[in-house]
Amino acid sequence: MTRRPPTGAAVLQATVTEAIVEAALDELAEQGYARLSMEAVARRAGVGKSALYRRWPSKREMAIAVIADFTMERATVPDIGSLRGDIRASLDTVVDWLAHPRFARILPDLVTEVARDPALAEVVDAMVGTPKRRRSAEMLQRAIDRGELPPDTDLDIALDLIAAPVYWRLIVRAAPVDPPYLDRLTDTLLRALTGTLPEDPPRA
Amino acid sequence: MTRRPPTGAAVLQATVTEAIVEAALDELAEQGYARLSMEAVARRAGVGKSALYRRWPSKREMAIAVIADFTMERATVPDIGSLRGDIRASLDTVVDWLAHPRFARILPDLVTEVARDPALAEVVDAMVGTPKRRRSAEMLQRAIDRGELPPDTDLDIALDLIAAPVYWRLIVRAAPVDPPYLDRLTDTLLRALTGTLPEDPPRA
Repeated sequence: MTRRPPTGAAVLQATVTEAIVEAALDELAEQGYARLSMEAVARRAGVGKSALYRRWPSKREMAIAVIADFTMERATVPDIGSLRGDIRASLDTVVDWLAHPRFARILPDLVTEVARDPALAEVVDAMVGTPKRRRSAEMLQRAIDRGELPPDTDLDIALDLIAAPVYWRLIVRAAPVDPPYLDRLTDTLLRALTGTLPEDPPRA
Repeated sequence: MTRRPPTGAAVLQATVTEAIVEAALDELAEQGYARLSMEAVARRAGVGKSALYRRWPSKREMAIAVIADFTMERATVPDIGSLRGDIRASLDTVVDWLAHPRFARILPDLVTEVARDPALAEVVDAMVGTPKRRRSAEMLQRAIDRGELPPDTDLDIALDLIAAPVYWRLIVRAAPVDPPYLDRLTDTLLRALTGTLPEDPPRA
């Protein structure tokens, strides 16, 4: 007897999932997390609410899942083979993530909600912040392995410095981030991570 | 004839202004800019709505004015006399500004609104961003005058790097910022601004 593919309610069709994810991102961008409703997402996706609840138990899980997917799809750090190349490429991935017209609204809105809701903060950190940071830490670890960064490099600060200036400039200041800025920022970050001051002890 | 102080409607009493400002900051923190209403602020301050309209023509002007005042009161950069001391003190002022329980909610909410409203973005930049940045630029200019920073220092990037990591860590990541972190960040920023790489041309 040949196995038949499962039918009916048990199947979560990829095209339906895709439509819901797009609708959820649009609603998050337009309405924000606080005003997001399962009903509006279902209407926008052209499906029934049950299609949403088959995938996620609540609005919170749905919102975090689509934001995490969106983030991790844009968190691939190219392996250029040099610290300078990898930092420059990492800055490009941060810009791709934050300059996306939808996401430039979704993320600051989420940050506001997180300030109001410590439980949400923990979920966002576990699902978005930590996986994204781990990806960038691998890039820095490769530079340590190549001897381009000292083994005692402060990864915590290094990771903050790669993401922070682009967020601050693009999202908080609503100021432009163009390739020349990113080139100059790359030089500055290289100096921050590998430069020496006259008073620095010599490195082994 | 002795001059009598003005009386009646022409006087904007400082104590009333103070009560309104506090009420507006509380409402901004709790409700956010979008849901802020002149009525709720008046009620909270225990005054009539006319007391608000005598001071500001609209909710927008009132909100920006109280946020700008709050910001500039915390934008005093101490003149320690050394670049290291001034950067460390500047980081403390950024933390004071952002870690304030009320403001940690107000600012990300404002950032969300700014992403939705370019006209608001311009006002916020003119009333909050630019004056605050000018204050920090004076601190860097003093270091240039003392010869601690090269005259061609990229002030644009330097100013982004002083504010961005604390905002990213404290507000976006909701992660702790403690004095040891600020000490290590100070060293990293000094390297970023004044460090040398083996490939750097010698500075004049």
